[in-house]
Amino acid sequence: MSTKQDVIELLKQADAVCFDVDSTVCTGEGIDDLAFRCGKEDQVKEMTCKAMCGNLDFGESLKLRLNIIQPHHHHVRKLAEEQPLKITPHVQNLINTLHFLNKKPYLISGGFETLILPVANELGIPKENVYANRLKFYYDGSYAGFDEDQPTSRSGGKNIVIQKIKEKFDHSVIIMIGDGITDMEACPPADAFIGFGGNVVRDVVKANTSWFVTDFQDLIKVLV
Amino acid sequence: MSTKQDVIELLKQADAVCFDVDSTVCTGEGIDDLAFRCGKEDQVKEMTCKAMCGNLDFGESLKLRLNIIQPHHHHVRKLAEEQPLKITPHVQNLINTLHFLNKKPYLISGGFETLILPVANELGIPKENVYANRLKFYYDGSYAGFDEDQPTSRSGGKNIVIQKIKEKFDHSVIIMIGDGITDMEACPPADAFIGFGGNVVRDVVKANTSWFVTDFQDLIKVLV
Ligand SMILES: [Mg+2]
Ligand SMILES: [Mg+2]
Repeated sequence: MSTKQDVIELLKQADAVCFDVDSTVCTGEGIDDLAFRCGKEDQVKEMTCKAMCGNLDFGESLKLRLNIIQPHHHHVRKLAEEQPLKITPHVQNLINTLHFLNKKPYLISGGFETLILPVANELGIPKENVYANRLKFYYDGSYAGFDEDQPTSRSGGKNIVIQKIKEKFDHSVIIMIGDGITDMEACPPADAFIGFGGNVVRDVVKANTSWFVTDFQDLIKVLV
Repeated sequence: MSTKQDVIELLKQADAVCFDVDSTVCTGEGIDDLAFRCGKEDQVKEMTCKAMCGNLDFGESLKLRLNIIQPHHHHVRKLAEEQPLKITPHVQNLINTLHFLNKKPYLISGGFETLILPVANELGIPKENVYANRLKFYYDGSYAGFDEDQPTSRSGGKNIVIQKIKEKFDHSVIIMIGDGITDMEACPPADAFIGFGGNVVRDVVKANTSWFVTDFQDLIKVLV
């Protein structure tokens, strides 16, 4: 395992920094908000937790949870309008710093594009740098599934996205930052992983990460 | 092959009468209207024709055509509102006659539920008696595929629907009426097939059908 100092050096050299969204860039979990909005929070919360801890295949758990939630188009619209995802403190400063240093920021999420694009927009991250899941609806707005071709809808999907970004944009050093086990497991292909525990601490991530932070200012301090 | 007189007798005994929609209950083809609305009529018309004549697997051809058309939610809404499917002459009288005689009418279509439900409503056919395909859309209304679990989205799908109706409602005699080869091939499980050529005549259907009509009044005359 690389040391904390190795990770710091790689962050300084990085061409790109990939962020998880739920409980990393944002304070909560979008799917739990959606479940709450649809009155299905209790049934879904437990399953989200299991999926986060790696006890359940992500793609299967996503399908199971959405089948319980049955999010209608109007649920998603109301959620996006009335209860947007809250950005974690100091994320904006960190993104600004990355832009200043010419390091490209990406958002890679198992959550939903519709809820994440406004966050990306607010942070100044271009739409093309967002990888997330896409809900489908029937003509009347009722739930019709999700785009199962998106790598982010499957276990190991973040790895596929990072590998793709690496090849497509010829980045030599990519950092992954997140709170969850799937974020940690995306290194490699990421060159280094930074664990984030500012919203929630996953013990297995904290125990296996050489640089675990609870405040994004720690990264800014290293970079400037 | 049963004779015309056999088919007439079976129609008199029938518990249920299943209608194809495009070029049967309605004068045109919904998917061609949709293609026109999206500016893709030329590329699609040829493929529809091939599919109707049985030279191309229906499910594959549906997927190919919709991938060309890329119907946005607003295209479908405008089509449904501004250019609804036109009902073929004497269909309303025939449906009224069937209702009077306690014979259940069904619509079974490879077209789209959204365009067909208003037709069913106008004809007094309950929603539950309509079997058709369901388009899917992403949050922003862009095309996201169709419900591939609907039997009507596949070759042989009409057969599956008729078999299902037969078992579920314990109908002993079911008639299928339509213009296309897939309608003709749905007998059996239908007990008899009536070819309809009032909007368009498919030679292969006309040649292989013992009772081929071009006016629904011919059926009404037999029934009353
Ligand atoms: Mg997370
Ligand atoms: Mg037809």
